[in-house]
Amino acid sequence: MSSGTVIIETIASDALRGNPLGDPFVRRVPVYLPPGYESGNARYPVVFVLTGFTGRGTMLLNDSAWDETLPQRTDRLIADGKVQPMILVMPDCFTRIGGSQYLNSSAVGQYEDHVVKELVAFVDKKYRTIADRDHRALVGKSSGGYGSVILAMRHPDVFGLMASHSGDMYFELCYKPDLIHALRALKKFGGLDKFWDEFPTVHPKDGDFNAMLNTIAMAACYSPNSTAPHGFDLPFDTETGELRGDVWQRWLEWDPVYLIDKHLDALRSLRLIYLDAGLRDEFNLQYGARIFAARLKARGIQYIHEEFDDGHMNIPYRYDVSLKAISDAMPK
Amino acid sequence: MSSGTVIIETIASDALRGNPLGDPFVRRVPVYLPPGYESGNARYPVVFVLTGFTGRGTMLLNDSAWDETLPQRTDRLIADGKVQPMILVMPDCFTRIGGSQYLNSSAVGQYEDHVVKELVAFVDKKYRTIADRDHRALVGKSSGGYGSVILAMRHPDVFGLMASHSGDMYFELCYKPDLIHALRALKKFGGLDKFWDEFPTVHPKDGDFNAMLNTIAMAACYSPNSTAPHGFDLPFDTETGELRGDVWQRWLEWDPVYLIDKHLDALRSLRLIYLDAGLRDEFNLQYGARIFAARLKARGIQYIHEEFDDGHMNIPYRYDVSLKAISDAMPK
Amino acid sequence: MSSGTVIIETIASDALRGNPLGDPFVRRVPVYLPPGYESGNARYPVVFVLTGFTGRGTMLLNDSAWDETLPQRTDRLIADGKVQPMILVMPDCFTRIGGSQYLNSSAVGQYEDHVVKELVAFVDKKYRTIADRDHRALVGKSSGGYGSVILAMRHPDVFGLMASHSGDMYFELCYKPDLIHALRALKKFGGLDKFWDEFPTVHPKDGDFNAMLNTIAMAACYSPNSTAPHGFDLPFDTETGELRGDVWQRWLEWDPVYLIDKHLDALRSLRLIYLDAGLRDEFNLQYGARIFAARLKARGIQYIHEEFDDGHMNIPYRYDVSLKAISDAMPK
Amino acid sequence: MSSGTVIIETIASDALRGNPLGDPFVRRVPVYLPPGYESGNARYPVVFVLTGFTGRGTMLLNDSAWDETLPQRTDRLIADGKVQPMILVMPDCFTRIGGSQYLNSSAVGQYEDHVVKELVAFVDKKYRTIADRDHRALVGKSSGGYGSVILAMRHPDVFGLMASHSGDMYFELCYKPDLIHALRALKKFGGLDKFWDEFPTVHPKDGDFNAMLNTIAMAACYSPNSTAPHGFDLPFDTETGELRGDVWQRWLEWDPVYLIDKHLDALRSLRLIYLDAGLRDEFNLQYGARIFAARLKARGIQYIHEEFDDGHMNIPYRYDVSLKAISDAMPK
Repeated sequence: MSSGTVIIETIASDALRGNPLGDPFVRRVPVYLPPGYESGNARYPVVFVLTGFTGRGTMLLNDSAWDETLPQRTDRLIADGKVQPMILVMPDCFTRIGGSQYLNSSAVGQYEDHVVKELVAFVDKKYRTIADRDHRALVGKSSGGYGSVILAMRHPDVFGLMASHSGDMYFELCYKPDLIHALRALKKFGGLDKFWDEFPTVHPKDGDFNAMLNTIAMAACYSPNSTAPHGFDLPFDTETGELRGDVWQRWLEWDPVYLIDKHLDALRSLRLIYLDAGLRDEFNLQYGARIFAARLKARGIQYIHEEFDDGHMNIPYRYDVSLKAISDAMPK
Repeated sequence: MSSGTVIIETIASDALRGNPLGDPFVRRVPVYLPPGYESGNARYPVVFVLTGFTGRGTMLLNDSAWDETLPQRTDRLIADGKVQPMILVMPDCFTRIGGSQYLNSSAVGQYEDHVVKELVAFVDKKYRTIADRDHRALVGKSSGGYGSVILAMRHPDVFGLMASHSGDMYFELCYKPDLIHALRALKKFGGLDKFWDEFPTVHPKDGDFNAMLNTIAMAACYSPNSTAPHGFDLPFDTETGELRGDVWQRWLEWDPVYLIDKHLDALRSLRLIYLDAGLRDEFNLQYGARIFAARLKARGIQYIHEEFDDGHMNIPYRYDVSLKAISDAMPK
Repeated sequence: MSSGTVIIETIASDALRGNPLGDPFVRRVPVYLPPGYESGNARYPVVFVLTGFTGRGTMLLNDSAWDETLPQRTDRLIADGKVQPMILVMPDCFTRIGGSQYLNSSAVGQYEDHVVKELVAFVDKKYRTIADRDHRALVGKSSGGYGSVILAMRHPDVFGLMASHSGDMYFELCYKPDLIHALRALKKFGGLDKFWDEFPTVHPKDGDFNAMLNTIAMAACYSPNSTAPHGFDLPFDTETGELRGDVWQRWLEWDPVYLIDKHLDALRSLRLIYLDAGLRDEFNLQYGARIFAARLKARGIQYIHEEFDDGHMNIPYRYDVSLKAISDAMPK
Repeated sequence: MSSGTVIIETIASDALRGNPLGDPFVRRVPVYLPPGYESGNARYPVVFVLTGFTGRGTMLLNDSAWDETLPQRTDRLIADGKVQPMILVMPDCFTRIGGSQYLNSSAVGQYEDHVVKELVAFVDKKYRTIADRDHRALVGKSSGGYGSVILAMRHPDVFGLMASHSGDMYFELCYKPDLIHALRALKKFGGLDKFWDEFPTVHPKDGDFNAMLNTIAMAACYSPNSTAPHGFDLPFDTETGELRGDVWQRWLEWDPVYLIDKHLDALRSLRLIYLDAGLRDEFNLQYGARIFAARLKARGIQYIHEEFDDGHMNIPYRYDVSLKAISDAMPK
């Protein structure tokens, strides 16, 4: 089986320079070039692969016990004729607090700009891409699925296809349980300020830690507030636990299930909307996908919606399905 | 130590006759008479003790490994001079689905009427009570704490004192997690209709079972709908998991934290508002109590609010505190 | 349906007088007399019903949400012709540390003597029993199942039938997990001495508490040592966690699966050996029952062995099966 | 900060050729060369870094959210003067069933030979090592800690230093809970044969899966039996759950705490014995380390033993301590 090539680009981002969390503006971004790229002159479609919370593109190259790396997987899919040769780009939108949701936020940084403006241009300039939206796709899992949905809705001129594995949607079910968990864990960590300062060295990084960090990161992405401590509002009162309705409403303005009507034309224009989730998803994302799909259906928008018998973690095998769907949906 | 007397009354309730769940309208209601009652002529205050979900008054007489029965506890408190001699009444508002929240509901029955109208009259007629609201209190735990709060707010002419241990409040935190749990468990049980028919013989009665039953029972109490299957609306779509906003709003109309302003005069008139909850309450009821207390405070209403280092279960020792608070707050 | 009568006897036990834990030697023991007893002259078989750890006989009269009391259950079984009229005796072998395993132990007290000598004699003297071993049975659940097995093996002259629901056996699987749990929890509780002194008022009484107490109680029953602190040896080093092989061996000398060959004649003589356990027993007791049954089978001893689809808790409905088996196995 | 170099060697192993599990005999083995290696002529000590169960050397290069890769970590430690420049070798002893415990087993393969004979010789031949046992160390975590202990005890002529992070020891506490878990999970997976055939594609790979696989793998390493199905004996009866004493005894012959007296001279000869474990280790390995340390102490053998406040997972920061201890203990 012939192998593609992985080049790890080092990209200095103007969008990320001076970001509020002090994260590096120079990022390492793996680019997968399919077998044949180097010896030929053909142009190729491009798929941006967005990692989940606490991930970044280089982790898609990690060795693991039971799974292929993403390049190995793609090599196999191409060799088997399941997927046409394509370029994969693996952005790094990791931050000190675990992620960015691929959005612009005054509390986190301009990650939407980084991906949509900088990386797209960089790749189209440097590599032999087919540089149009019909040959440019987004795919990702979890927060990366969220990023794929959001960026495709907001930038249909840039991206013509989108696939979300277990993507964050219907915040009522996917984030609320973590809010409650974080609320309960807050005291154990000595309060928000202490956690904020010390979390990188907190051990163990257990379920309490994850709920706290996830809640903080989502607040920084969805309810930034430059006048608030640490630059964001939490959606609950840390003492009484009362939901702050105004802050929660700001979160909901970023919930894909409520954004459909705002981006109807964009969604209609997509060549592919692919959604899936596991039937035992620990973050209840199967329900979000069902709600999103039901709303697309009610509006006459085409989509593919699958469910599979698994949870949220360790599901890279689902890329076999999404990459094929992307390949199939591109113009022949 | 001299002991009081427990008489188990058998009461045929007009309010419960023909109730929709087919539960018995004849109920066994323990009445505790303090030491000295039988040999004297004195009149006594009355405390209605409301049990939690899946409980009924007779269970307050149950023997257990580490705790006194309620009569044993009260004997001791009276003997120690902590509590003045008083009559305790232990209603049975249990139903096929585990409880009634002490409300009137077209799906469950007229349990509010049963307690407020029938039992109060029965006790005042049969026993030497001090038959005024200043000597008539409500106390309970969990759903019984809820009942105490609700009945005191709605019937200040009948009850002049109220104490809630870990009472259901702020449904956003105390019921939402169970909704999610029930949603996930629904498929395992073969759907609502099957569960409804078979749950009494379902084994094991585990966490999934409890979440399902609790959700169903609360729906029957808070969002009854005589035109819906089984007589109530669930607050979520059983397929997509989407929260049904209109149904949830009907639940919130029964949430004590939102009922304060509707019953301000009643609350101001109470001789005692006592609230507590454990710092590790599995149903997050410490937050509900804090929110309730904060709102009382903001309105200048007196209350006692305590927190203790324990969870939701096995906390009858808290009655030592509430019964004393009730005793102290009654007119001398 | 006619109802039997429950008399709660108050028995001053010579065997328990001066017991090392300071527990009361006067015990309340419910005796169930079947319908017809009081109006007739018939003599009846007797079943001793042994409760599990942290239980005592009076708890079999407790009201509960989904189950009958034991007298209600027996009334129904007799009315339905499933079970012949019989007397039930419900001993109290509860101790400060939760139980006694129905054994004589220098660290706990003479509970075996109390049941086998005192209670049998008391009941035969006071009530119209058929006072022979063919009409005298033992039944119990969990530690009560253990007690039934052990007392029947050791006193075949007294008891001719035995039934064990989820009885403690094969300590390797039923106690070892609790040992590990207790070992880990020990530090949280401040060590054995502190726990020993304070456990009655420790809150919450959670899984850590239960594992600790269970381990301590079993050690007091199986490896008493009058020269050791608190009168018993723990089977592990509390610092390194190393299993103390000699102490563990003393436990195993009380494990029913290893006692079969010592009591072969007794086992062969029993009119009934009934064993069951749930397929999801949280204490792995289904395996113990299988091992016990396999060994009986290998030795040509008759028994009934059932498994059912449930866990360890809330399984009083299994008494329907065992009481019928006992009734059927008695001489006609 | 200057960076070392990582070379990923591809090694065809004679020891692994024709291994019984059909695993590849060609392995990729990362070798870390310290800053200065390529420009100079110095010789360096060598540390073999052994990964845990389901790991292999290349995973030490994986990118992760909160941690450095092992080469990044070593670069930093060298730059800070904490650790002298050294070569790191990262073997791949992964197998179809997750690992090999770095042993020779008829059921798994000759992994001990692969490391001790082949890799040591390969590295000494190809790189400028200080090729003596005083400059050759083993370090690893979990099963890699086990491998370090075992190989150092068995090959003191080859390795003069050893460090174990949370290494498998005292099987009574570290494997027994998994045995019980596996026993219970076996039915869910349809039995051993089915699991053996299908486990690579079983989803989800949850706690049941991990307990099953771990039990199978340890049995293949510790109790291989060429006449048994799949080449090994399980230490329990899969139907009754009874421990197979003879098989368990074979496991114990590989338990480090019981091997000390067999390898006393070897242990005495080591320049470094370093042990640690987290106080909340999910596999109870803190107890194993304490027992091992206590036995060393009783025999007058020097060692370093540390405990830290964390669990079993995500603890690569402990390499800061062990690599420094190794560096310090080598001859100056």
